[in-house]
Amino acid sequence: MRVLGIDPGLANTGWGIIDAGGGKLRHVSHGTITTSSQEMNGRRLLAIRNELIEIVRTYKPDIAGIESIYFSRNQTSAIPVAQAMGVVLVTCEELDLRVESFSPPRIKQAVVGVGRADKEQMQELLRLILGLKEPPRPDHAADALAAAVCRYNYLSPGEDAKKAGM
Amino acid sequence: MRVLGIDPGLANTGWGIIDAGGGKLRHVSHGTITTSSQEMNGRRLLAIRNELIEIVRTYKPDIAGIESIYFSRNQTSAIPVAQAMGVVLVTCEELDLRVESFSPPRIKQAVVGVGRADKEQMQELLRLILGLKEPPRPDHAADALAAAVCRYNYLSPGEDAKKAGM
Repeated sequence: MRVLGIDPGLANTGWGIIDAGGGKLRHVSHGTITTSSQEMNGRRLLAIRNELIEIVRTYKPDIAGIESIYFSRNQTSAIPVAQAMGVVLVTCEELDLRVESFSPPRIKQAVVGVGRADKEQMQELLRLILGLKEPPRPDHAADALAAAVCRYNYLSPGEDAKKAGM
Repeated sequence: MRVLGIDPGLANTGWGIIDAGGGKLRHVSHGTITTSSQEMNGRRLLAIRNELIEIVRTYKPDIAGIESIYFSRNQTSAIPVAQAMGVVLVTCEELDLRVESFSPPRIKQAVVGVGRADKEQMQELLRLILGLKEPPRPDHAADALAAAVCRYNYLSPGEDAKKAGM
């Protein structure tokens, strides 16, 4: 089973692909979709959409997990993230990719067992879990890989059969 | 010149179409795209996207204006609105429709001259401005018509030529 993880953002949308099967997880690829603040928001969102479509066509994931917005006091910065998240959700839906969203603490917990791990701890754990030589970088791509791990750990009813079959 | 106005929301996205020319504005159509809370967000956002594409294909607007999110303390309710807004922005961009966003007070000011008019005042003004028999309803569709009026009042450089030509 192949899982796509996404950490959405207007400036930087991290993505990561893992394969899961036989009780093991394996890193496939990761990266960041970057857009320029010189462009209008509509154009930036379209760049995210188009690159996401390309990633899905290239890697053909079975399911996707997305990092949701953490409730914080800074509403202004949450709005562009939510716009990017809306674009990711609608694009996955159009591509028939079953997407689930998870809060940042839940994603961290899926990787390191505690909800308050720091970034370096999480990236080192991802390195071990996914059999990488170096901790994944940059942060957005690492968070996307963590979202993919989380998505696989919390499969929805009906998705488990496919998990067992691998 | 034909203008599309949009008041985005996950549950209710209002839309309105007006024609502008010869110093007059004329109502063409308005309505609301409604989605069910029983559905997953991705599916709801896709319903908004698909209906918006249909509206643009039907009415062929030249430009679009969208109501942006008003800074408030309620971040939780702002997130689904921002997701819907992201989907509207990316869809307009794909359809080559030049979209601009405006804050709610600026939209109100474009219609009634003051930023703090109540909904009934604004709907009555819209009735007069757009030559309607009744004030437009429901609220989301009326707000979308107001966004269209605002978009026309603040044309971007280069769009004025078309305005003058009508």
